[in-house]
Amino acid sequence: MTAVSRDDFVARDAADPLAPFRGKFDLPDGIIYLDGNSLGALPKATASRLDDVVRNQWGRDLIKSWNTHDWIGLPQRLGDKIARLIGARPGEVVVADSTSVNLFKMLAAALRLRPERKTILSDARNFPTDLYVAQGLSELLGNDVRLHLLPEDRDRSADERVLESLDDDVAVVMLTHVDFKSGEMHDMEKITEAAHAAGALMLWDLAHSAGALPVDLTAANADLAVGCGYKYLNGGPGAPAFLYVAERLQEDIRPPLSGWMGHEAPFAFDTDYRPAPGINRNLCGTPGILGQAALEVGVDMMLEADIGEIRAKSVALCELFIDLLEGRCGEFGFTLASPRDADRRGSQINIAHPEGYAIMQALIARGVIGDFRAPTILRFGFTPLYTRYVDIWDAAEILRDIMATGAWDAPEFKARAKVT
Amino acid sequence: MTAVSRDDFVARDAADPLAPFRGKFDLPDGIIYLDGNSLGALPKATASRLDDVVRNQWGRDLIKSWNTHDWIGLPQRLGDKIARLIGARPGEVVVADSTSVNLFKMLAAALRLRPERKTILSDARNFPTDLYVAQGLSELLGNDVRLHLLPEDRDRSADERVLESLDDDVAVVMLTHVDFKSGEMHDMEKITEAAHAAGALMLWDLAHSAGALPVDLTAANADLAVGCGYKYLNGGPGAPAFLYVAERLQEDIRPPLSGWMGHEAPFAFDTDYRPAPGINRNLCGTPGILGQAALEVGVDMMLEADIGEIRAKSVALCELFIDLLEGRCGEFGFTLASPRDADRRGSQINIAHPEGYAIMQALIARGVIGDFRAPTILRFGFTPLYTRYVDIWDAAEILRDIMATGAWDAPEFKARAKVT
Repeated sequence: MTAVSRDDFVARDAADPLAPFRGKFDLPDGIIYLDGNSLGALPKATASRLDDVVRNQWGRDLIKSWNTHDWIGLPQRLGDKIARLIGARPGEVVVADSTSVNLFKMLAAALRLRPERKTILSDARNFPTDLYVAQGLSELLGNDVRLHLLPEDRDRSADERVLESLDDDVAVVMLTHVDFKSGEMHDMEKITEAAHAAGALMLWDLAHSAGALPVDLTAANADLAVGCGYKYLNGGPGAPAFLYVAERLQEDIRPPLSGWMGHEAPFAFDTDYRPAPGINRNLCGTPGILGQAALEVGVDMMLEADIGEIRAKSVALCELFIDLLEGRCGEFGFTLASPRDADRRGSQINIAHPEGYAIMQALIARGVIGDFRAPTILRFGFTPLYTRYVDIWDAAEILRDIMATGAWDAPEFKARAKVT
Repeated sequence: MTAVSRDDFVARDAADPLAPFRGKFDLPDGIIYLDGNSLGALPKATASRLDDVVRNQWGRDLIKSWNTHDWIGLPQRLGDKIARLIGARPGEVVVADSTSVNLFKMLAAALRLRPERKTILSDARNFPTDLYVAQGLSELLGNDVRLHLLPEDRDRSADERVLESLDDDVAVVMLTHVDFKSGEMHDMEKITEAAHAAGALMLWDLAHSAGALPVDLTAANADLAVGCGYKYLNGGPGAPAFLYVAERLQEDIRPPLSGWMGHEAPFAFDTDYRPAPGINRNLCGTPGILGQAALEVGVDMMLEADIGEIRAKSVALCELFIDLLEGRCGEFGFTLASPRDADRRGSQINIAHPEGYAIMQALIARGVIGDFRAPTILRFGFTPLYTRYVDIWDAAEILRDIMATGAWDAPEFKARAKVT
């Protein structure tokens, strides 16, 4: 990398077709926010939307709002919008509960679709809640079902490890499409095809994919999926999650969490549970309307953008950040902890450093907000709707300064906070 | 009832110690809202609280808000506040998920605490989602567990029917403290004691109790409970729910929905699930902060009121409404569908009429908002923080007019809407 300067990055922003989206977010001054993969930023339209839902819908129309403002249809309506971001068809996605609760629903449903098989296959690097939910389900079912976790292996790709572990006892393969810690991306089509060839169902966690890069569940012939509303979809803290069931499987799903909103006729108040047709049976309790309304604002904005442009900018941001780390921070002992190949990577760059925790705290103190994942990972998420090219330059320069001056090596940066 | 007039009701409002609370709600003009047992009204403070959480916390402090605004502690902090409304101790209540999801958690936990017993005992009149969740859990567990539903019996109280059905196969008794359709209230202490004497655990659904009347889970020696945030707690549409586990049972609970927020160290990102100490293990996914923040406003307001005064006014409103129905609407064929004895009744009055659906639609068209529960029940909920005595008078007068003029008998009132 030669003769690169801040002006080059400013010029890229000037030419960026996504640049106008940044103005649609309410971002604090003096902050370079590279943590949209943990909590997305606030769309400017969210506060007024919530105010409308609260004052005009809840306040004025009260209980009638379930009909007049179609609150009752919001989980499906919003699900259909998210479907467009992940290559699903209308009626295949619904918004409900949390990612963890939806993982439970989908895993339990998959096990009942493959009753003769007793293995859930996943990756030891998967996000912990995915593993914990599988463990809890297994224990609930009397440990009749086994969670097989593929160990870490630096010499082979995650895909290779999955493919060689498929056997005829695997009921469901549960993977996070883009790994939360490394940013490594699975080959969705290839893994799904292999799972099917082995007679297993495929459950994708799209937490770090939806809104970050093109996903095509239909092309991949996926079975089940879940995803998160508060990362790249900018739905707000603890936003409701979504789930996907391929149309061909929907009538065979027996929901383990069989609450009234998944009933064929919730307001008939029948004594016996009868699952609703289609995706709706995967609902459980009354939907949280405030959370869903805020999420809808974020999703609507995503739908205005071109996902191809988002991906192109994401790849460019990641590549440039690696270049800057190698070119201007090369002497400080960082190791790239994401795949070097952009095609195998999501929208984040992770680097490892033995003093990663303190370095991240020092960055945060200087206004560069990434996050730390134990034991050594500094994680930087790039969200093309609001991350500018110049942010990448500035973040790398601040990192260089913190390392060159030893500013990270201070007691206040080494004390551990409750949440990082 | 002789010589009663609207002025008598106006005078009661003037003497009501709870009257100032009505001004803390944002109620629409021209509406008599008697459906707070379905969706509570909007506290005036909610919109500005949400605006602060959205703009200042999420918008300005982004991911740091989990620490700096203690989002991470909100489920417990809010749980401790609700604990004061239901006679629980600090650390026994947490806010999470929906009532339906929490029912699943508590039922599954109870079954694992009584592994040799195979019956869930409930009431056929229980709210449908309670029954559906039990059915789904039973099916998930291979129908090894049986849901025993007590049939309706007009000649005996619900309590009598429960007591004679307890046997040594009952693992858990699941009842809604105040029945959603009749308003009948169980004797919490007596039933809990009988369940314990039979070796069973007791799970109370407080959906129609919390915030409506005094509840003392500690005095009743209760085991498990769940409750709803969007009825008498005024938390907003689909507000998060709460759950209660008696301290003595907490370390024995194995959460079936073992998500990361219930882990001993969520941010250590360990591969193996280890339940958090105490009530926290009953959390699953990331808490929805917008919903919890709105609920906190409603709960804070409830804590300003005296629950004894709430109950006294609730009883008075119910008694007066019955008097008005009998005295001024006696000839129209209504039957009281709630217990006549105030001590056996929650904060609602239900009446049956073969044309109940159309009559309720006609009432709604005249601004009296109750709700209809199939097949014949008109349901009127009284929420002493904002229901005035004069509202009761006016509602009864409008009902009388609708019946006397036959206004209910119109095609527009007979067409069924999606949600009532």
